[in-house]
Amino acid sequence: MASQPLLLRALSGETLARPPVWFMRQAGRYLPEYRAVRAQQPDFIAFCHNPEAAAEVTLQPMRRFPYDAAIVFADILLIPRALGQAVWFEKGEGPRLGPLPSLETLRGGVEGATRRLSAIGETLSLVRAALEPERALIGFAGAPWTVLTYMIEGGGSRDKAQAKTLAYREPELVDALLQVLVEATADYLAMQARAGAQVLKLFESWAEAIPEDVFPRLVIEPHRRIVARLRELGVSVPVIGFPRGAGALVETYAAQRFVQAVALDTQATAEQGRRVQKLATIQGALDPLLLRAGGPLLDQRVDQLLEQWGGGPYIFNLGHGILPDTPIPHVERVLERVTGVRI
Amino acid sequence: MASQPLLLRALSGETLARPPVWFMRQAGRYLPEYRAVRAQQPDFIAFCHNPEAAAEVTLQPMRRFPYDAAIVFADILLIPRALGQAVWFEKGEGPRLGPLPSLETLRGGVEGATRRLSAIGETLSLVRAALEPERALIGFAGAPWTVLTYMIEGGGSRDKAQAKTLAYREPELVDALLQVLVEATADYLAMQARAGAQVLKLFESWAEAIPEDVFPRLVIEPHRRIVARLRELGVSVPVIGFPRGAGALVETYAAQRFVQAVALDTQATAEQGRRVQKLATIQGALDPLLLRAGGPLLDQRVDQLLEQWGGGPYIFNLGHGILPDTPIPHVERVLERVTGVRI
Repeated sequence: MASQPLLLRALSGETLARPPVWFMRQAGRYLPEYRAVRAQQPDFIAFCHNPEAAAEVTLQPMRRFPYDAAIVFADILLIPRALGQAVWFEKGEGPRLGPLPSLETLRGGVEGATRRLSAIGETLSLVRAALEPERALIGFAGAPWTVLTYMIEGGGSRDKAQAKTLAYREPELVDALLQVLVEATADYLAMQARAGAQVLKLFESWAEAIPEDVFPRLVIEPHRRIVARLRELGVSVPVIGFPRGAGALVETYAAQRFVQAVALDTQATAEQGRRVQKLATIQGALDPLLLRAGGPLLDQRVDQLLEQWGGGPYIFNLGHGILPDTPIPHVERVLERVTGVRI
Repeated sequence: MASQPLLLRALSGETLARPPVWFMRQAGRYLPEYRAVRAQQPDFIAFCHNPEAAAEVTLQPMRRFPYDAAIVFADILLIPRALGQAVWFEKGEGPRLGPLPSLETLRGGVEGATRRLSAIGETLSLVRAALEPERALIGFAGAPWTVLTYMIEGGGSRDKAQAKTLAYREPELVDALLQVLVEATADYLAMQARAGAQVLKLFESWAEAIPEDVFPRLVIEPHRRIVARLRELGVSVPVIGFPRGAGALVETYAAQRFVQAVALDTQATAEQGRRVQKLATIQGALDPLLLRAGGPLLDQRVDQLLEQWGGGPYIFNLGHGILPDTPIPHVERVLERVTGVRI
């Protein structure tokens, strides 16, 4: 047990002398070695489906920093593509998606979807083989509502107006679309666990501004069904849920107790985190803008987070992905402060 | 007292048989009569500074609907303009602002700012003279952090990265800029009250994703100082604070008890609202996307809001501004449901 990864110990509810730490998007553009690989991989989707390249960038931050976990390099929009919707990335503009396929077409895509995502399993196997045993490997997927929002909007959008309008006007259709994503996502995550992922994370990046009356339908139920299906499939690894932007509803989410950890966003309060910590391990929630800015406020905030949440099961992380122009010395400084390891 | 406007009764903490109701941006593009006036006013800023035109559009929704309050037609970006920063509106693209003036220049602008905004006082006087005594008149301003964010970003922005970065890197400068806005805003709101506003509202449209460690500096303190300054100036009208997107921090905000009402956004939970209601009157929080969508879910949600919050001091409203393409029959249906008045 002494060699069990810190992340798994925290996820089993243990309060540790110092929390495990990893950063969302830690395999990414703030690293020059990532940018070098990316330059050789002009097609982002093909890059995600290239196990050697994806494993390489997954491992890059692990060589440089004392992160306690690696997270597989992939994208939340690989699933719609595997279900039959066109997905591509415009340089500097984020993802673009083709027209939403019919419910029938998407349903028909579920069976083969995980097979079409098998490269991500290969990435996980390569990473797991290369990673020290005391460092955990995380697999992930986008949560159904977030993924569906992209599928309906055809890309990123500020207020998710089209997706929400459809959820209000055609609730049965939206529920059926979410169910397709629940099934495809559970299968995909189960495959990731079999391939070496010791932890699974569900990214609900767009849980913001969802009213309480529809939050259970759009967020809680799909997450619950994914975790239930994973357990049916014999997958017992811990799951981190991240209902980003859910405000007070993050507590409603945590109270369901079907995830082992709840990731908190930058806005979570100390008290709210402690309330959630009674229900699950918590993760978060340093502001990536503060990490990028650096300076005395960064040091103070890191100490504050350690102080306010370190007394219970806690995973140190950002409240959102690390920004591409984050100075590496800032990352080092925070990791030294959290781990006590001189870099 | 029987003829005191319902809105003022709710704001004094009274629980009413049915809540007063008004909608954010009720004077706006969903009304054909508004679009007709707007067509004659190609310059949006000049439109705001034209008392006859602004009073006309403020009154338009009052003629059509049983709203319990009118809110003066103006814009939160009139203040930076009055302080010396260029502000203009690109058709279909939202506001644009010129370079941020120096702190010195902005400080120098405070003294004359309210005079440069005197047209808004004239609008209020015209509206007050035309409005029935049982309907209240609301004045408003953007809250300092939100306005400063526009001033720094040069317009709307998704993550307010520049403004937040400045708040982290140069806290003294940002505090000084906020203080300039506190002073200008308090004077401007005091003028609005003298001109006929019976209620004042502070729109903190961008309270989202502000971490707890900086929330007091960026949001709470500036609001507190504005209200304190209003009271020093002898202005005793109730103030509604709207820290939109503040999540759990809306309770921290309400606990300060310097505003008479806290407006809640679409995401506020029933329980959270009831907790805030012990500290202040609450306002909110129907999703404008649901109002636009209509149908059985809209009826259900209206009933749910009335049920969950109607037992305490409550003002029925949206959680964000009404959308331009909202069908008028949907507005009528909600107002009938809330007021019991057949339209």
